[in-house]
Amino acid sequence: MNIDIIKNNLDEILKYKTPVYVYLYDVLKDRCAKMKSFKDTLEKEIDKKVSIHYSTKANNNPQIIKIVKESGLKVDAMSPLELDIDLKCGFKNDEIIYVCNNIDKEEMKLIREKNILPCFDSISQVKIWGSLFKNTDIMVRINPGIKGVGHNKKVITSGKKTKFGISEENIKELKEVVEKYQLNIVGTHLHLGSLFLNDSIDKYIKGVKEYLKIVKNNFENIKIIDLGGGFGVPYQDEEPLDFNILIEKLKKILMKFNKGYESVEEYKFEPGRFIPCESGLIVGKVNSIKSVMGKNYIGTDIGMNILVRPSMYDAYHKVSIINKKEGKEKIIANITGNICESGDVLARDRTIQKPEIDDIVIVENSGAYGFSMSSNYTGRPRPAEIMIKNGKIEEIRVRESLEYLEKNLLF
Amino acid sequence: MNIDIIKNNLDEILKYKTPVYVYLYDVLKDRCAKMKSFKDTLEKEIDKKVSIHYSTKANNNPQIIKIVKESGLKVDAMSPLELDIDLKCGFKNDEIIYVCNNIDKEEMKLIREKNILPCFDSISQVKIWGSLFKNTDIMVRINPGIKGVGHNKKVITSGKKTKFGISEENIKELKEVVEKYQLNIVGTHLHLGSLFLNDSIDKYIKGVKEYLKIVKNNFENIKIIDLGGGFGVPYQDEEPLDFNILIEKLKKILMKFNKGYESVEEYKFEPGRFIPCESGLIVGKVNSIKSVMGKNYIGTDIGMNILVRPSMYDAYHKVSIINKKEGKEKIIANITGNICESGDVLARDRTIQKPEIDDIVIVENSGAYGFSMSSNYTGRPRPAEIMIKNGKIEEIRVRESLEYLEKNLLF
Repeated sequence: MNIDIIKNNLDEILKYKTPVYVYLYDVLKDRCAKMKSFKDTLEKEIDKKVSIHYSTKANNNPQIIKIVKESGLKVDAMSPLELDIDLKCGFKNDEIIYVCNNIDKEEMKLIREKNILPCFDSISQVKIWGSLFKNTDIMVRINPGIKGVGHNKKVITSGKKTKFGISEENIKELKEVVEKYQLNIVGTHLHLGSLFLNDSIDKYIKGVKEYLKIVKNNFENIKIIDLGGGFGVPYQDEEPLDFNILIEKLKKILMKFNKGYESVEEYKFEPGRFIPCESGLIVGKVNSIKSVMGKNYIGTDIGMNILVRPSMYDAYHKVSIINKKEGKEKIIANITGNICESGDVLARDRTIQKPEIDDIVIVENSGAYGFSMSSNYTGRPRPAEIMIKNGKIEEIRVRESLEYLEKNLLF
Repeated sequence: MNIDIIKNNLDEILKYKTPVYVYLYDVLKDRCAKMKSFKDTLEKEIDKKVSIHYSTKANNNPQIIKIVKESGLKVDAMSPLELDIDLKCGFKNDEIIYVCNNIDKEEMKLIREKNILPCFDSISQVKIWGSLFKNTDIMVRINPGIKGVGHNKKVITSGKKTKFGISEENIKELKEVVEKYQLNIVGTHLHLGSLFLNDSIDKYIKGVKEYLKIVKNNFENIKIIDLGGGFGVPYQDEEPLDFNILIEKLKKILMKFNKGYESVEEYKFEPGRFIPCESGLIVGKVNSIKSVMGKNYIGTDIGMNILVRPSMYDAYHKVSIINKKEGKEKIIANITGNICESGDVLARDRTIQKPEIDDIVIVENSGAYGFSMSSNYTGRPRPAEIMIKNGKIEEIRVRESLEYLEKNLLF
């Protein structure tokens, strides 16, 4: 269906040249609405405030952030640029959490100046913050020590093998630091990893239980319980995450926690990928078709600089060809980019429409960790981003020009 | 020794903030001189012209390219930006080869307009070129079908499992296309992969032999034999590549080839990494030190957006700490960046100087595929690049500002 929208708007889309990131407003709105409904339902069920903070790093385009805001969601930032964009998009300081990972003092000063609540993931960072800003509110990230969930080991963010969070054995030391600087831990944070679907709900719930136990056993007067993000999307044909099941299971343990831990006022969730991922597609072009030693290669202009996930994580993205001549023949092929590197392969051994030169290639589920991880490797510019809204196309990021790319160089 | 130069210039370096890419002029000059000497020696030995084309994608900073030029070397480009930089640095059109991988017609027109010799790696691309520009000179890339060499499967660029080159079975078809468009194949190209050291010289030579056999058996009147690049550097403590051995072995097979193939006028090599790699270091800062479940983590400001090789290829880079208090205690630690992602680890299980907050971190061998693969992931700006020359520091790329990063956005 998303592919049909691309087909129907192809001539207009191609005015922005290829490759180009295309976002479908309706899909984005729908995912935001799903998050809002998750929030509203859970709030009613557990009788506590629930907030959804969209993780800006998934996609920091202001036009996407603004739709997040309109939908009644909040936001997470983790760099001065992300914070600046979030503020410019109209978020107030108390709608933003600053998720810190090894930040420096200068950045801490910025957070303080803007009066944003920081969430720290090491005692070392809490010490530095405390020495700068006594008697302030902070959140801390807990690592419950059980293995997290994720589509690739590079994105599992809890457990013994990750750099994130403060483990239970170190809480005593944390408390000494907090006391020394009269800091106030208003919230705790947990992030188990990325991209969980129905078959990982139980694993997620287990992590949440472990985490709540650590909070209850070690902290008093916590007001904010942040349960992180990681809500997945189906990249292949998995079942989408069933929020009713999730709510049902969360409800039980959160109700129980509420009873035994009276200070809690709010639960937070931090979805990133779930919100923009499925709304984004990359539209590119077939520049070369060949067969090398029995293997077919479709060479496109969608290189690893445009979408790094397949090269970096061996991630699966659906790839389709729009064949202008409407041929029906299929081939098995590797779909590659235009970067001189063997790892520059978008998709391997796919059964796909037999293409011709200048046919259109579409990569689905590219709205999250697509543009945000893009680079200028081999000197390629980053593409434009456009949004299709009510049948009309709006440019939401300008394609990088040669002039722009050379601006910081000194010839 | 490189570390000492950083130490001696630390105060000046830190004026550019961290992280920052630092290049040592003397080291860069030395590697260029090594390539020039390789060229001169081989030229004398085989009595044919030898050209060295630096692969711009390894590092496209104009101040580096200019040193390459001053040293009597030529250059390779593979995108309009790289070509533009090379031309602005003073290279003439006949000193540049355009290495094409799945490029589009617009790019072909640019190459033609600038009168640059293109090297194509598929018949499909030759066809498009031929239909646009009949009766012109081209080079073609051959895949000899034997497995290439490389530090990671993502960078092996010949063999059955790579997207590159035209294999022997397809040469008949290539010739039909060439005839149809009256194209003139003036040169053939081979690239076996990346990063070979002494222990792979024989493998490289074997690939070269196979390639020369294909050229001799299939092509007449080739003037340029391009043997690609891939000259490695020691990232850990391997022996550096011994060019005398390489020359000795190349000499034999090239002399033999010269005799049986009279049209050959020139041999080309395309080193990328070898030239800038060892001259570049990243200087960063320790922002956090912690221990999670028995594992030490040193959190720095050198994230995977600054240097992606460890995350992308599990690449090894030497990492050192400059401890201001000059303590002697060592610890075993993971050195991580400041990106919220578990894969954001610069180095694993390293025995390293026990650091303190604000200590300096240095990552060696970062001059190639360092800045050129960098990104703005999580909204982090790309750093400045500076060069130390005759004890003085010159800024050669300005750090990205918030304003710059937001320039293409539409709020």
